[in-house]
Amino acid sequence: MSKIRHALNTRRADDFAQWYQEVISAADMAEESGVRGCMVIKPWGYGVWERVQRLLDARIKATGHDNCYFPIFIPLSNFEREASHVEGFAKEMAVVTHHRLIADGEGGLVPDPEAKLEEPLVVRPTSETIIGDAMARWVQSWRDLPLKLNQWANVVRWEMRTRMFLRTSEFLWQEGHTAHQNAEEAKEHTLRMLEVYRACAEEDIAMPVIAGEKPEHERFPGAVETWSIEAMMQDGKALQAGTSHYLGTNFAEAAGIRYQDREGGQQLCHTTSWGVSTRLVGGMIMVHGDDDGLRVPPKLAPWQVVILPLLRDDERDAALLEYCEGLRAALAGASAFGEPVRVLLDDKPGKAAAKRWDWVRKGAPVIVEVGGRDMEDGVVSLLRRDRLWGENAKPAFETPTRDDAAQGIPTLLEEIQQALFAEARDRREANITRGIESMDALKDFFASNGRYPGWVEVQWAKPTGAALEKVVEDLKALKLTVRNVPIGSAPADGACLFTGEPAVERILVGRAY
Amino acid sequence: MSKIRHALNTRRADDFAQWYQEVISAADMAEESGVRGCMVIKPWGYGVWERVQRLLDARIKATGHDNCYFPIFIPLSNFEREASHVEGFAKEMAVVTHHRLIADGEGGLVPDPEAKLEEPLVVRPTSETIIGDAMARWVQSWRDLPLKLNQWANVVRWEMRTRMFLRTSEFLWQEGHTAHQNAEEAKEHTLRMLEVYRACAEEDIAMPVIAGEKPEHERFPGAVETWSIEAMMQDGKALQAGTSHYLGTNFAEAAGIRYQDREGGQQLCHTTSWGVSTRLVGGMIMVHGDDDGLRVPPKLAPWQVVILPLLRDDERDAALLEYCEGLRAALAGASAFGEPVRVLLDDKPGKAAAKRWDWVRKGAPVIVEVGGRDMEDGVVSLLRRDRLWGENAKPAFETPTRDDAAQGIPTLLEEIQQALFAEARDRREANITRGIESMDALKDFFASNGRYPGWVEVQWAKPTGAALEKVVEDLKALKLTVRNVPIGSAPADGACLFTGEPAVERILVGRAY
Repeated sequence: MSKIRHALNTRRADDFAQWYQEVISAADMAEESGVRGCMVIKPWGYGVWERVQRLLDARIKATGHDNCYFPIFIPLSNFEREASHVEGFAKEMAVVTHHRLIADGEGGLVPDPEAKLEEPLVVRPTSETIIGDAMARWVQSWRDLPLKLNQWANVVRWEMRTRMFLRTSEFLWQEGHTAHQNAEEAKEHTLRMLEVYRACAEEDIAMPVIAGEKPEHERFPGAVETWSIEAMMQDGKALQAGTSHYLGTNFAEAAGIRYQDREGGQQLCHTTSWGVSTRLVGGMIMVHGDDDGLRVPPKLAPWQVVILPLLRDDERDAALLEYCEGLRAALAGASAFGEPVRVLLDDKPGKAAAKRWDWVRKGAPVIVEVGGRDMEDGVVSLLRRDRLWGENAKPAFETPTRDDAAQGIPTLLEEIQQALFAEARDRREANITRGIESMDALKDFFASNGRYPGWVEVQWAKPTGAALEKVVEDLKALKLTVRNVPIGSAPADGACLFTGEPAVERILVGRAY
Repeated sequence: MSKIRHALNTRRADDFAQWYQEVISAADMAEESGVRGCMVIKPWGYGVWERVQRLLDARIKATGHDNCYFPIFIPLSNFEREASHVEGFAKEMAVVTHHRLIADGEGGLVPDPEAKLEEPLVVRPTSETIIGDAMARWVQSWRDLPLKLNQWANVVRWEMRTRMFLRTSEFLWQEGHTAHQNAEEAKEHTLRMLEVYRACAEEDIAMPVIAGEKPEHERFPGAVETWSIEAMMQDGKALQAGTSHYLGTNFAEAAGIRYQDREGGQQLCHTTSWGVSTRLVGGMIMVHGDDDGLRVPPKLAPWQVVILPLLRDDERDAALLEYCEGLRAALAGASAFGEPVRVLLDDKPGKAAAKRWDWVRKGAPVIVEVGGRDMEDGVVSLLRRDRLWGENAKPAFETPTRDDAAQGIPTLLEEIQQALFAEARDRREANITRGIESMDALKDFFASNGRYPGWVEVQWAKPTGAALEKVVEDLKALKLTVRNVPIGSAPADGACLFTGEPAVERILVGRAY
């Protein structure tokens, strides 16, 4: 057993699910709310989400979308128009039936029977139908197209089994909705937004992803094509981190989104929708966390640098605080990733070691400790969260001069961002297995590769109908699903793993959240 | 009748309510959604709200608050704990009773009787009770205090009569919630946040407000003190634009928010809450709009400067676009209010005059038109939205050189921000009447001052109980309410307008939204 005293009780290798719950709590990211399936996102967790929002919002605006806001309530009749859409969501919808409470005569409250809604309202699980209504009003002619909208909102899907950030009854997300003149343009846009998600996942969250198309049976209810980005968690499972859908004319037909073309004819629009959610925060935790807690990529960290003066309640303290403040001010005036460095001088009361471990668990990228000796020597003690441990089970402090720290930390933050990405990408690459060519070999692989087997890339003949159902069943028996058909993978050159027919493409198969 | 051809059909002086609806539509701010009481906030309207959010969020963070997120659903039993709170909200709550839909056998959908919730959930009308639960978990000792939280969220209050931005069933807002060790600190914080609201209203929205305490009968349900900022709209009515509440120990008692003090004793926390909403956007419209449409203060304008090349579909156009792009790039690289200037080169097809009037109606602060002649002369034609009209009913174009425009516009934006504020402040000051000393005089005043009489400042003896009820009734007959007791107004020196007793303070009385 390692001599290193880790800051969490559970290690990833021992029980990943337990570790996940523990790190969320230890890093003070979120907690159960007491309301069924809903969580409270605490300041450190919400701060990370705010950063994701800002960075992704800039990318969404840069691709020509305007933000707007649509009602949270959707009349039940809206859902009746698109059959496969409602089939996909009806089982998990929160339904508002009353608009008033009255006393029940026993000190409690009940919905007022006199205030029953004529038509129940659904709390939006997604907004295709209500935004489709608006698009039908807004689009008249080809000149109004493309129409490119985005909304940041909360949505509700009544989940039976919930897990913080990954699957909650209410979650926060962004949903983009666009309308186009034809299939070609709409499909191109579907892929453009998938690329925006890839860039955000890899460049902002430092979370490598594989972008590809979902197989038919995994499509969004009502979509013609569904594309996803898939990230590998440290337990080898896949997290579907974002999806982009080409909806064909299905929703346009249901809502009547038509335009007059250049020749004066009436045409149906082709629409797209795409979304990512607070699930990304769960992905960040499971990709970057370690046995000491969270490691937040610098681009997302609410505080990128935390300065901890080792205060002793004596006259030395004022000088020490001033010395620390010098570093804080210098860093706050510098920039990393094109923004001012977010630096906290944490002078709250408390034992220095306890405070250090709090910030380690929260995953602040750089922790700078400053004691009296450091001040005398003109240096600081600097700890990189991504490379916490040095020799002899001691934290790997470096001791640059204060000026060198002020100069070097902005670049160091960019290095840490890269290092976290490279570490995650290398781990994922090491855990994708190729060359498995039969169902038996697939079974063997997952039986013999422990609890964290990663993904396999196999070839298939893209079965449909009953043949596809059989594949889905067989995979399900191994707790596996098809993740996606990666964009840009090598052409098929063998037999279909499931049917033995000539394969037409390569797919990723794995366990998933 | 003026020779000026205004861009709207209705003038403020003729029908303010109709004008308000028309300007929202003409400026493309929002529209009815088709869902009862809910609106769609369109890109230009949401862009303004996003600016308010960014600016206010920075102020809220600068006063030491962390953002977080709490569930939208609140168990019914939470409301049963604080009697006056539930009394204030029970009549307008959306209640979720089911979590699944099923087919009704006739092609429609109904809530599934098998999926009825054991305890109905209320869609939050405000979050005191659910955040109180969290505070009770998070606060243990005096070291955890003050606890300063903020949330950006949607809330639902089932309003019977709605008006866009001012009163909608769903609206967007910010709600701050804090817990303190004692009354003094909590009261001080209540006023600090009121000051944050005043600063945001006046410095960001250019909307002058009067900050003061609400009388007892206008308090937030469950509050001990309620303070507000009140803005005067152009029809002389008051808009309560923000409120800040000292909640005493009422909610702390209901939720059990207790802390161990320095001596080891258990104490109840004193809490505060405070909020502003998308109503601020309605205020901005009614304070700054004119008979040509909206005028957006530069700090809030999604586009502060719009450049309109007068394109003619000929070979001149490329040179003209390049000339315009030179100005756009120079402005985008400059800053106003400490941020890059938000400048749009609008080269979409369309007639130049139509496009100009679109931007006038939307209220872009500076519109720059550039034709071939301008380019030859090295100038641009610049229009200030806040001073649209020159002599002979013509738009008041100025023609600075392109370089002077690039140099001068950032300062001009700051000037326009100031000018809009000064205009609104002067108008409000001219419409507050003092010296009315009897109920008859009050009646006369409101009977003889037309439809837009403004506010009156009167003195009262701060009646309570039945005497207060009488005052409220008498005012109600004149469609008047007490707005607030302004902070810093002169001491009372006369008799109570209502009772003739010696007055103790001055109050503002007016009609309100």
